[in-house]
Amino acid sequence: MSIGHDEVTIELADRGYRIAIGSGLLGERAVLDGLPHGSTAVIVSNPTVAQRYAHRLQALLQSRSTHCILIELPDGEIHKDWSSLERVFGALLRAGADRKTVLYALGGGVVGDITGFAAACYMRGIPFVQVPTTLLAQVDSSVGGKTAINHPLGKNMIGAFYQPLRVIADLDTLDTLPDREISAGLAEVIKYGPIADDAFLGWIEDHLDALLARDKKALAHAVKRSCEIKAWVVGQDERETGLRAILNFGHTFGHAIEAGLGFGTWLHGEAVGCGMVMAADLSHRLGLIDAAYAQRITRLVERARLPIRGPQLGADRYLELMRVDKKSEAGEIRFVVIEAPGRAALRPAPDDIVREVLAAHAA
Amino acid sequence: MSIGHDEVTIELADRGYRIAIGSGLLGERAVLDGLPHGSTAVIVSNPTVAQRYAHRLQALLQSRSTHCILIELPDGEIHKDWSSLERVFGALLRAGADRKTVLYALGGGVVGDITGFAAACYMRGIPFVQVPTTLLAQVDSSVGGKTAINHPLGKNMIGAFYQPLRVIADLDTLDTLPDREISAGLAEVIKYGPIADDAFLGWIEDHLDALLARDKKALAHAVKRSCEIKAWVVGQDERETGLRAILNFGHTFGHAIEAGLGFGTWLHGEAVGCGMVMAADLSHRLGLIDAAYAQRITRLVERARLPIRGPQLGADRYLELMRVDKKSEAGEIRFVVIEAPGRAALRPAPDDIVREVLAAHAA
Repeated sequence: MSIGHDEVTIELADRGYRIAIGSGLLGERAVLDGLPHGSTAVIVSNPTVAQRYAHRLQALLQSRSTHCILIELPDGEIHKDWSSLERVFGALLRAGADRKTVLYALGGGVVGDITGFAAACYMRGIPFVQVPTTLLAQVDSSVGGKTAINHPLGKNMIGAFYQPLRVIADLDTLDTLPDREISAGLAEVIKYGPIADDAFLGWIEDHLDALLARDKKALAHAVKRSCEIKAWVVGQDERETGLRAILNFGHTFGHAIEAGLGFGTWLHGEAVGCGMVMAADLSHRLGLIDAAYAQRITRLVERARLPIRGPQLGADRYLELMRVDKKSEAGEIRFVVIEAPGRAALRPAPDDIVREVLAAHAA
Repeated sequence: MSIGHDEVTIELADRGYRIAIGSGLLGERAVLDGLPHGSTAVIVSNPTVAQRYAHRLQALLQSRSTHCILIELPDGEIHKDWSSLERVFGALLRAGADRKTVLYALGGGVVGDITGFAAACYMRGIPFVQVPTTLLAQVDSSVGGKTAINHPLGKNMIGAFYQPLRVIADLDTLDTLPDREISAGLAEVIKYGPIADDAFLGWIEDHLDALLARDKKALAHAVKRSCEIKAWVVGQDERETGLRAILNFGHTFGHAIEAGLGFGTWLHGEAVGCGMVMAADLSHRLGLIDAAYAQRITRLVERARLPIRGPQLGADRYLELMRVDKKSEAGEIRFVVIEAPGRAALRPAPDDIVREVLAAHAA
């Protein structure tokens, strides 16, 4: 099946890069046109994804590079740590990888974040390409150059802004994704509506059933529109000095959920989905949006089969966890709130209102 | 004693920064003018340097930031590793450091490299200032934004190009430096002559005794001219895609010596001194410079009380170690050679000529 092939370009101060979106891309040689050859190409993946898709990418790469090696990392957010990174470095050094070696991150957000950070640090920076195979990675984490590993004291605390040379989002890889991960990816798709495009929110409401049923045409539009919005935001603020923070709508609450339960208990997208419900309610309690708009977001999160109630960590623990968020300054938590349908901003909120939100949606 | 205060500016594509050079700088508040305040300032140092100089920097910082914390790392190249880096990350997270926190690297190359890399990665990048307290750090490692840690399989293999906001080189900190480290620093000073400024080589020959005697006026000129040359090179090629590699004159052989003996056995500057003797001889054997010029470099290295004979690792081991150098491509070692007095280039060399060099200067 071919639904054609879309392209979104991300324009940055010093260069731009392309996001290719479509079915069957891992079977098309042209998708690698213009990328450097290098004598060694390295695919970083996890066992599940590698077994399904690594041979397709290898077939494309073998015509371009003398050697092609595959590094398999254990799957899951709890493995997004120094030990996985060290595994990549060791394999690269043993394989004689040099500054012309290109890394291909074939997998979801965990593989993409580790591989991108490894590329940023190995010999102080080598090229890499994102080949996202989950919906969440295709609509969010593979685009924009945020790479990181987790620290025992905080998620994504150690990382770099480091852009890929290209993003290749083959929609066919979503066919084998568990339902739970489709839902998790939809959390990040839904996010783009309230923060940047109210019409897109309406489109998602109309097409949610098609998206859950993995209709390729609906998925293609969702991935493309998500990438367009992300490209527009990142193009204006690559290093998150201002605007870019809006992409973290729902993430402050969400990170606290992930950290409080132990990373990997909830999927990142699940925590973000629930976090958006909380952040929408916070926006309402701050007098920015009406109750109906917050309810619309909650209803959509629920329809996407995502949790709308947070775990009972206790409000003190939530607050403590949120204070180590990267958006905090001098211990003051700053939240992404919806100022108006399709427009977000970063601002602090009084602790007592945050506690009200937590009392209503968690405990 | 005041000898005045010199300044060198390093101009990069997106911004520039200043290198302040002089006596008594750690007693002058003005040296921090224009730097961001932040609620927390963090000094990273080692126990020896911290005991001598941390109180001076703390006194300057306490008028600017609410909190000032000191992180002490174990001294020595063998500690330039993940475990020291992790110590910095842990301390920053426990202290609630955020993206406005400024790190101050107070020490030599090891402290500067670790702190710079920690600043590059912590929350994907926070500001840092280099306060080099060794001659080697003042003339070379603190300037230009190369940061890194070592990997068991290779020196400086994991790092980032990440520029400091400022470099503050207080010459008074050289008063307490062991003689061996003055010599090691002079290796990097000598380097700038053959690669970029033949007249400077003559000046060093004339002033070597004054430099060894730590004459402040001679040191001030040596540091300033070294920084000017480095700034000129880095300003043209921040990320070492070409020209910048010439700053690694003597370093390919030198790194092999350090790695072969185990990092820390020889000081980095000692290995570079000996490496320059080898690289000068290689340049001569390749027909680029006459024997007299190679001899001039050797004589100067020897006068600086640096080793001119490498350890007997065996030629095969030297070659094996040099193949993992970051300048290698597809397993081919590339050397910085002197093409003419004051001009260097990067090029491969036949193994048999490299073996001749090793036979003459090591084994």
